[in-house]
Amino acid sequence: MTKQISFNLFEMNCVGHISHGLWAHPENTRHRFNDIDFWIEEAKLLEEGLFDSVFLADVIGTYDGYRNGPETALIESVQIPSNDPLLVIPAMAAVTKHLGFAATFSTTYEPPFAFARRASTLDHLTRGRFGWNIVTSYLPNAARNFGLDDEVEHDDRYALADEFLEVVYKLWEGSWDDDAVVIDRDNKIYTDPSKVRYINHVSEHYKVAGPHLSEPSLQRTPLLFQAGSSPRGREFAAKHAEAVFVGGGSTEDYRDNIADVRRKAELFGRQGDQIKTYAMAVVIPGKTHEDAQRKAEEYRQFSRAEGYLAHAGGGGIDLAAYPRDAMVSDIIEAENRPGRGKVEDSRRYYGKTVGESLDQITRFDRPPFFAIGTATEVVDSIERWVEETDLDGFNLRQFLTPGTAEDFIELVVPELQKRGLYRTKYEDGTLRERLFGQGNARLFPEHPASRYRGGANL
Amino acid sequence: MTKQISFNLFEMNCVGHISHGLWAHPENTRHRFNDIDFWIEEAKLLEEGLFDSVFLADVIGTYDGYRNGPETALIESVQIPSNDPLLVIPAMAAVTKHLGFAATFSTTYEPPFAFARRASTLDHLTRGRFGWNIVTSYLPNAARNFGLDDEVEHDDRYALADEFLEVVYKLWEGSWDDDAVVIDRDNKIYTDPSKVRYINHVSEHYKVAGPHLSEPSLQRTPLLFQAGSSPRGREFAAKHAEAVFVGGGSTEDYRDNIADVRRKAELFGRQGDQIKTYAMAVVIPGKTHEDAQRKAEEYRQFSRAEGYLAHAGGGGIDLAAYPRDAMVSDIIEAENRPGRGKVEDSRRYYGKTVGESLDQITRFDRPPFFAIGTATEVVDSIERWVEETDLDGFNLRQFLTPGTAEDFIELVVPELQKRGLYRTKYEDGTLRERLFGQGNARLFPEHPASRYRGGANL
Repeated sequence: MTKQISFNLFEMNCVGHISHGLWAHPENTRHRFNDIDFWIEEAKLLEEGLFDSVFLADVIGTYDGYRNGPETALIESVQIPSNDPLLVIPAMAAVTKHLGFAATFSTTYEPPFAFARRASTLDHLTRGRFGWNIVTSYLPNAARNFGLDDEVEHDDRYALADEFLEVVYKLWEGSWDDDAVVIDRDNKIYTDPSKVRYINHVSEHYKVAGPHLSEPSLQRTPLLFQAGSSPRGREFAAKHAEAVFVGGGSTEDYRDNIADVRRKAELFGRQGDQIKTYAMAVVIPGKTHEDAQRKAEEYRQFSRAEGYLAHAGGGGIDLAAYPRDAMVSDIIEAENRPGRGKVEDSRRYYGKTVGESLDQITRFDRPPFFAIGTATEVVDSIERWVEETDLDGFNLRQFLTPGTAEDFIELVVPELQKRGLYRTKYEDGTLRERLFGQGNARLFPEHPASRYRGGANL
Repeated sequence: MTKQISFNLFEMNCVGHISHGLWAHPENTRHRFNDIDFWIEEAKLLEEGLFDSVFLADVIGTYDGYRNGPETALIESVQIPSNDPLLVIPAMAAVTKHLGFAATFSTTYEPPFAFARRASTLDHLTRGRFGWNIVTSYLPNAARNFGLDDEVEHDDRYALADEFLEVVYKLWEGSWDDDAVVIDRDNKIYTDPSKVRYINHVSEHYKVAGPHLSEPSLQRTPLLFQAGSSPRGREFAAKHAEAVFVGGGSTEDYRDNIADVRRKAELFGRQGDQIKTYAMAVVIPGKTHEDAQRKAEEYRQFSRAEGYLAHAGGGGIDLAAYPRDAMVSDIIEAENRPGRGKVEDSRRYYGKTVGESLDQITRFDRPPFFAIGTATEVVDSIERWVEETDLDGFNLRQFLTPGTAEDFIELVVPELQKRGLYRTKYEDGTLRERLFGQGNARLFPEHPASRYRGGANL
């Protein structure tokens, strides 16, 4: 095996993203997330460590289903307080040349025209290093922050997302030709107007005239990440995503799910290898095996079950109503209400952990992707994971900031490099080229957005 | 007179903001606006020059009324191509400590919850240096980019803006107490949940539950700029704005309009001096009078009437249908359609230039605020303007980037400093404190947003 493995740092513009309770660790600096220097320092560190990207999760509501209120989320800092993810990217871009940036944005509540321009702006400012993690949101409180009484139904959210993507694809790919901006000082022509067009999109939920306000950026459409695991979500990913977060309870699950998304992509006329696949991983390296175990034990001691349970209910299920030995599968069954999509939402959340109890889901050393040990031990694990699953890369879960990234860079990267599994310097090019090779700054012609190029099919 | 005068650089995230045709000047670098370094260099320059702020205008549509299409706007780069204004602020904040940032955002088309969080994020990242220029939008094409067939009626836009502000005030001022975030590592309490609350806002157009996702930033509510000149717009400014852009055709007009907005503010229970007033100014300094005249003449020669006319129609009036000697007042009369608010929109646009012809509005040396000459000459003018009008400051119109700011810093600032009209170093504190003095990082208690503090009146 000689393919290099991608590593992104899994981030969120908040204190407690997914490692609940760890904020209280004396070496953790998550409470500095409001500070621009927190992001600048992180970006520099990750670029030093030759990371692919920093990957920013997001939610636009509060986890207030647990014990029927937001109290636990607030006490445990479960993704609240939080800030906007897009706005830290320019600060990090200002101090880096190569690090990629992927940020989460929901297609459910905000107008596509405004997002299309923000994404183009970010792709310009980062010189083609911007990726978008497409989500449809799932917190009931998010719906209530945007004028609704409750969530849009699960499958309707995906239908809306499909429409949203059609709009932004038209703006990004179809509204301006590459040679539209001519900057002809002699003839006083900045843009050739014959190469810019309205999109005049009309669909069930969106009516958008255009033209796009931004001129084409290096990637045009940002690199598209997605993480759907429901049938509808997988279909969506197979159609649109270039990088997919896969779920599963075992390496076999991952292998099956990866093969499945590639197969489904082919049904949409795409090639299977035009989708890269990612999973979240826990990597806790130590100078010795015991040192790593000691760290893991420390993280375990700081972990807060209340935080995990408030989070895991997804805002829609009050897990406090169940005993800790209740099985997730039974809870999902009990909570399932037809048409609400709770089962799908929960599956997405838990991956294939339905065979676990509530107590088990509060642990971070859950199969299949955790490795605790010396550099040799953890890289042995990583190498095996990739062999067994066909994964292309991982989002590294953080326990301490900047500790988790520092440990990885100091201990794991050299061992990965020694085995030819990690770059020794950055390639030139955009984020898309980092994944798909030089010359692939733009979407593949098989991608559904490509049909709008040059104004076709508008 | 000893009061210092505020200067902001008038900017927009595009090539051609208001000095149409100047992009073709060989020393102009506006075509670099997509490049993060353009903004980083500008921010450093302005901070060196001890500017108050960079003030970013914005539109979210294209000027496509002129000759019934977007062609002229594209050829002349009249605010297209353009990028999002909020996203360049973190890059500029990353390289500065004091420079303020004001950005334009419209209350008409996007959800208040998302904007409230973006503004809080920017106020955090800039450490209290963020200001918001509240606009309601006026381009017909903007409406068509956001699902509507035509603009929302003028007065309805202001009613909507009032509602929008109520929502964001509740989120910024009422949802979190100052001492909510405790970061108590021993007792494992990040946020005291008794000090965070839902806002449960319900009004005609908005239904927003909260809580706000961001914890309180240094200013909470960003410094509020506004530029309404219609009766409804002025009422809105008198109620909400802390810094008002005033219009007028003479210094007497400005004096009257400034007195008027202060008087109206008092009707809302505010104090007149809780509003600072600004105007746009053209300042073209030279080492000699002739040098300045030569520059002005050069700018005149690069100016493009077509650009001004495409812009001045505001997208709603095709000024190509009128002869160049037509008077603005007659055009407004001819175009006025009941309920469409065109007259008000146009007045807002032209200030009190209704007594001018189309040819005249394409000139940049329009009264009352232009000064072309030596440092002594232009500072004499500036000093007189302030004396005659009671203005607090100016947005400097750019002809060349970075030339206009460089000239101002090199030639004008030292003369202003010599007369005690300009700071010689930055004060500490937030943007609001820069305008209203140390200790005033937050809105005055008389401001309507203050009524939500501590969760009152939610």
